Amino acid sequence: MMEQLAVTAIGYVHNSATPDIHSEEFRHLVSDIVIKPEYADGLMDIEENEFLTIVFYFNRNDGEYRLRLHPRGDEARPITGLFNTRSQFRPSPIGVTVVKLMARKGNTLVVEGLDALDGTPVLDIKPHVLTFDEGKEIDDPGKNRVRKPR
Amino acid sequence: MMEQLAVTAIGYVHNSATPDIHSEEFRHLVSDIVIKPEYADGLMDIEENEFLTIVFYFNRNDGEYRLRLHPRGDEARPITGLFNTRSQFRPSPIGVTVVKLMARKGNTLVVEGLDALDGTPVLDIKPHVLTFDEGKEIDDPGKNRVRKPR
Repeated sequence: MMEQLAVTAIGYVHNSATPDIHSEEFRHLVSDIVIKPEYADGLMDIEENEFLTIVFYFNRNDGEYRLRLHPRGDEARPITGLFNTRSQFRPSPIGVTVVKLMARKGNTLVVEGLDALDGTPVLDIKPHVLTFDEGKEIDDPGKNRVRKPR
Repeated sequence: MMEQLAVTAIGYVHNSATPDIHSEEFRHLVSDIVIKPEYADGLMDIEENEFLTIVFYFNRNDGEYRLRLHPRGDEARPITGLFNTRSQFRPSPIGVTVVKLMARKGNTLVVEGLDALDGTPVLDIKPHVLTFDEGKEIDDPGKNRVRKPR
């Protein structure tokens, strides 16, 4: 039984990335994330963060995926499990990437390092917290958050 | 206009966490993530990872959220924007947490540090990659992945 759950686009990615981009180019790509006006109040204080976790939706998929695959479709790389890769073709077509927040201009966040194509729906934005091995805190923006240097 | 997008549960969390758990208790909580049999092939090689990124769905929400809130509902903490917190009450009720992979037993992953309640739907599992500031690679399980020490 397939359980379908609903999520919502809070905004969209605007950048120069087209489907033929090489994955290495994403690292320093600058993108605008334009948040819908009705969600803009949720951006209060967002500029305190040096890094953000962006949750986005691979909307160019046709719903197809393979549970075992050559990473990046490269037959020189051994077949492995889908959940051992960051392939965009997944049962839940969700991408999660930590980006650097360069600037905020009203409803628009200017970020570096987002590996999403132009037009990608953004589902959520979270403060980037230090990961488990470094002493993670749960649900507390005041502790262990990576803050902008002053 | 609200754009609804669909995601899918690939499995469920089984642990001792009930809604009255204190958030500090999650850090060392051990959970089983039981993957549905139809997705089990996607777990091939997953045990090579020391850390995994778990994407899950806050299914106990009623769809309500506030765009500005006191973190953790604590009035001693100043009001801030929702996207500056990891509150469970979000337009897209998605949680993202890096956990430590303790063991794999068939379709079941035993993990430490997952801040999700018993019964939570799991949407996706990804290898944890080093974050932007540490030199992130995109979509390549062979590079910059945090591997289990041998």
